[in-house]
Amino acid sequence: NISGRVLETFGIKTEGLEGWILQGTKRSKLKYACSYDHEIISDDDYDMNAVSDADLAGVKIDVDVSSGREYTLIKYISYYTSRECTEEELISNALNEVKHGKNDGPDVIFREQKDYLNKFWDDADIIIDGNTALQQGIRFNEFQLLQSVGRSDITNICAKGLTGEGYEGHYFWDSDVYIMPFFLYTVPDIARNFVMFRYNLLDAARKRAKELGYKGALYPWRTIDGPECSAFFPAGTAQYHIDSDIVLSVKKYVEATLDYDFLYKYGAEIVFETARLWLSIGSYIPLRGNKFCINCVTGPDEYTALVDNNAYTNYMAKMNLEYACEIAKDMKNKAPEAYRKVAEKIALTQKEIDAFADAAQNMYLPYSEELSIIPQDDTFIYKKRINADDIPQDEKPILLHRHYLNIYRYQICKQPDVLLLMYLRGELFSKDELKKNYDYYEPITTHDSSLSSSIFSILANDIGYFSKAYRYFMMTSRMDLDDYNGNVKDGIHTACMAGAWSAVISGFGGMKVYSDGLHFTPALPKEWNSLSFKVKYRNCRIYVRIDDKNIIFKLLDGSSLDIYLYDDRISLENGERIIKEVL
Amino acid sequence: NISGRVLETFGIKTEGLEGWILQGTKRSKLKYACSYDHEIISDDDYDMNAVSDADLAGVKIDVDVSSGREYTLIKYISYYTSRECTEEELISNALNEVKHGKNDGPDVIFREQKDYLNKFWDDADIIIDGNTALQQGIRFNEFQLLQSVGRSDITNICAKGLTGEGYEGHYFWDSDVYIMPFFLYTVPDIARNFVMFRYNLLDAARKRAKELGYKGALYPWRTIDGPECSAFFPAGTAQYHIDSDIVLSVKKYVEATLDYDFLYKYGAEIVFETARLWLSIGSYIPLRGNKFCINCVTGPDEYTALVDNNAYTNYMAKMNLEYACEIAKDMKNKAPEAYRKVAEKIALTQKEIDAFADAAQNMYLPYSEELSIIPQDDTFIYKKRINADDIPQDEKPILLHRHYLNIYRYQICKQPDVLLLMYLRGELFSKDELKKNYDYYEPITTHDSSLSSSIFSILANDIGYFSKAYRYFMMTSRMDLDDYNGNVKDGIHTACMAGAWSAVISGFGGMKVYSDGLHFTPALPKEWNSLSFKVKYRNCRIYVRIDDKNIIFKLLDGSSLDIYLYDDRISLENGERIIKEVL
Repeated sequence: NISGRVLETFGIKTEGLEGWILQGTKRSKLKYACSYDHEIISDDDYDMNAVSDADLAGVKIDVDVSSGREYTLIKYISYYTSRECTEEELISNALNEVKHGKNDGPDVIFREQKDYLNKFWDDADIIIDGNTALQQGIRFNEFQLLQSVGRSDITNICAKGLTGEGYEGHYFWDSDVYIMPFFLYTVPDIARNFVMFRYNLLDAARKRAKELGYKGALYPWRTIDGPECSAFFPAGTAQYHIDSDIVLSVKKYVEATLDYDFLYKYGAEIVFETARLWLSIGSYIPLRGNKFCINCVTGPDEYTALVDNNAYTNYMAKMNLEYACEIAKDMKNKAPEAYRKVAEKIALTQKEIDAFADAAQNMYLPYSEELSIIPQDDTFIYKKRINADDIPQDEKPILLHRHYLNIYRYQICKQPDVLLLMYLRGELFSKDELKKNYDYYEPITTHDSSLSSSIFSILANDIGYFSKAYRYFMMTSRMDLDDYNGNVKDGIHTACMAGAWSAVISGFGGMKVYSDGLHFTPALPKEWNSLSFKVKYRNCRIYVRIDDKNIIFKLLDGSSLDIYLYDDRISLENGERIIKEVL
Repeated sequence: NISGRVLETFGIKTEGLEGWILQGTKRSKLKYACSYDHEIISDDDYDMNAVSDADLAGVKIDVDVSSGREYTLIKYISYYTSRECTEEELISNALNEVKHGKNDGPDVIFREQKDYLNKFWDDADIIIDGNTALQQGIRFNEFQLLQSVGRSDITNICAKGLTGEGYEGHYFWDSDVYIMPFFLYTVPDIARNFVMFRYNLLDAARKRAKELGYKGALYPWRTIDGPECSAFFPAGTAQYHIDSDIVLSVKKYVEATLDYDFLYKYGAEIVFETARLWLSIGSYIPLRGNKFCINCVTGPDEYTALVDNNAYTNYMAKMNLEYACEIAKDMKNKAPEAYRKVAEKIALTQKEIDAFADAAQNMYLPYSEELSIIPQDDTFIYKKRINADDIPQDEKPILLHRHYLNIYRYQICKQPDVLLLMYLRGELFSKDELKKNYDYYEPITTHDSSLSSSIFSILANDIGYFSKAYRYFMMTSRMDLDDYNGNVKDGIHTACMAGAWSAVISGFGGMKVYSDGLHFTPALPKEWNSLSFKVKYRNCRIYVRIDDKNIIFKLLDGSSLDIYLYDDRISLENGERIIKEVL
């Protein structure tokens, strides 16, 4: 945890109602300036004195208040950090921002804020008719996500948002995999910040790969501004899958926004450099039929570590490599100049791209004939199975009660990699495959990760385990409002909040986003009267409403969009409202 | 490393030529007293003044020396630590020891020391006729080992002896596996200290097992007085094999000394408690034909970690479990009262012993049909092979140049587990099996561990790779004298020194010690004229001399002993000298 003094003060100025303070972090040497000004609206006299000490800049205002009279204090504050401008500009930028605000005045600022939030709710609101508590929970989550997310491409969203010091404010894969979709389909401008944030970390990721003796780029498991901040590498750096998680986020972003400008200028470089990483850590293994194997990795399930051929990792690496080939091919045709530029910048050759294709095509994809499931990795199914229900409640989460050595040796999952894979890459797996794997992994999953329940809820819906789907959803939707885990004092769970959104939209709403577009297989819980929401996709905005009989689609913005309902294609035209029967 | 101030001073007394100091370590709270006295033999006058400061007790002696006259200063020093007596007794014990010494005087002390060393060399000396440098190297090693080893059952022998701070003075498995045999067959009284040292750590090992959620006892990977001192558990605590290494040491000790008093009172308890550990961490695995598997361990080769069914570990655990059953059966017959006592003390039941037998019988012993070798673990042979010769010299040892993640994913060994197993449990494997495994593992072994070369030397002899055997031996015998690795400034390599002894006795001398006795298959290097040595075994002492034509055995002490030469049994009688032709 962040303990002891972390900030040093480099300068303070106070002058009447105005002032600023310049501080910096001790170790990472980030600096920030905070500037303020005040307006006092009062018919009575008041005294005011600037106050300051070594770490404080402020003003003390004394008013002799009288009953029935009105006193207004308006406070303007701005912050700038050294990640947004040079250190020299910090103070002047902060002062200018306050001046700007004061110029506009509170009415303008309030109106702007209101407009912003109205717009947000118009895009993002979900209406659950039939359960006020859930309705409240979902809105609470969406609001917290909006409050927590960075508004620029050098910040992202922390595991605890801005509400607590848990996880030291670091950014994890949660952002890319769990949280990004919420913004992508509601406020895509913010989603662009997510992928640009990763682009801005690419140099650090290249450096990290080199440090470890690899080619390409390896993103840090946890970081604020680029360097790897995880200490225990088997549950940190070994989670190479973060590279492919980021690539999936880029891919989904581009597919949903058609922002090829981003792809060609920035995204492609991420995809090529991460593809290189896979080629660098994987090998063709003779005793595996010369398949391309990726050994010694940790998957999303941190209850095993340093395993070989983690299914999630191999499937996702394959996607990463294939996407690299696809982009290279497309760019050569459609944006040859942009391709030349990026290829030159990172010295990318056709030979390398052929090697990407070869590794992707020959990727070792684990499958157990004996169990008819995808084994989590090469050794997982040869470990002793522990039924999660047999673990006493006071020994959970087992992470806090057992040594890693007493976890890694069992078939026990914090969250299941294989099922997450089947959610993220749903187009690759049949319902029967999904069911077999779900049935295998569910009993050994502890859900000790708050990321687990939402995925189970969505997949349970897909299989037809409707009551399970609802039960898992109930564990996510009001988690922080009702403080289920008794730890909201440490801050909110942003990924769980976004997971609850996904559970509604992708689970009950049944919306899956594949390369060919939006697919819907809704499954309204019997407890609800109706569910309605809006999503943005390829410069269109659609409205969806599901009740126990019908599903209504309406194209609000955009000229036309093809979507799929139960595998039937529906062509929506602007303003058109289509009603279909729920099957 | 040990940096900063580690000792605190608790008391000092100086009085004329005498004095003492009482100090203790800051963190582990060990205390020790050092006491001294002096005698001055001089015909001239001298001044003497006690000196002391916060950390110093001493005496300053001023003599006006004159040419041609003789001055003698005799210094008596003794140390006692709080591990040998109570803290209250420290000072008086140290003072008494000095008084004793002064009473005896230097002549007696010198004579005792000379007798001790004469006896040692009479038992332990090896004569290599034909290479003076090797002769010197071997004697240097033996002397250093004797200097370094503890003389009580609460101390042992450090990786660097008493010559350096490397490895923080901790005790490792090196003691039990590599160093103990040297003492066992030359100075068995010291070997008894090795096994008693482990017995004295048994409570701490029980505590450690419990901490980790296991039954029985888990010995620390590195320690001074019991607690686990390794920080990185994948290359520390996960090396459970240390339990069986200690048991093998107990077994070899008892077989060589027939010290059943030790076995029944102490050794048995070690063997039962470690057998429990294996039962507790292993499981019967359905997909492995319900064999007893031991998952998530690290073998002796630290270039892979947290693997399943490490061959070395499984074979050694099987030995441990079998030995527990054998001891239980023997004790019930031969020492029922002692058995009752230990069984009661640790609540050992027949049901548990049956479970030991069952696990031993069903132990999963990895074998690769495809490669006709024992795979190091379940995943090792599915990794990419790296030829050790392809690693540039300036990147060795790779441990210091690569991240673990860039080591664990390859078939590359610091030292080979499987070959070590084949050495330690030689009676289980045929020469053909040994050759196949040797040929497989040698090219991928970096010998980054100083423990590696001696084992390769011995096994190369067994296979008939005589020039290799000699080359590997040359890497061990004068390692520190010639400072091969350029790091003797950090201290000697005690295990390597003992390994050189083994390479001579077990390799060129061809002596293997199996449960049924001593086996000889000598292989004198063509570079030598002859090799002779003595070994102690079952209260006998034999002399062995090998030249290019003959091998001579002579029973020096003991009434009779059966030994094996090339599988022929030879019965030696006291004083009898038997000459056989070298095959």
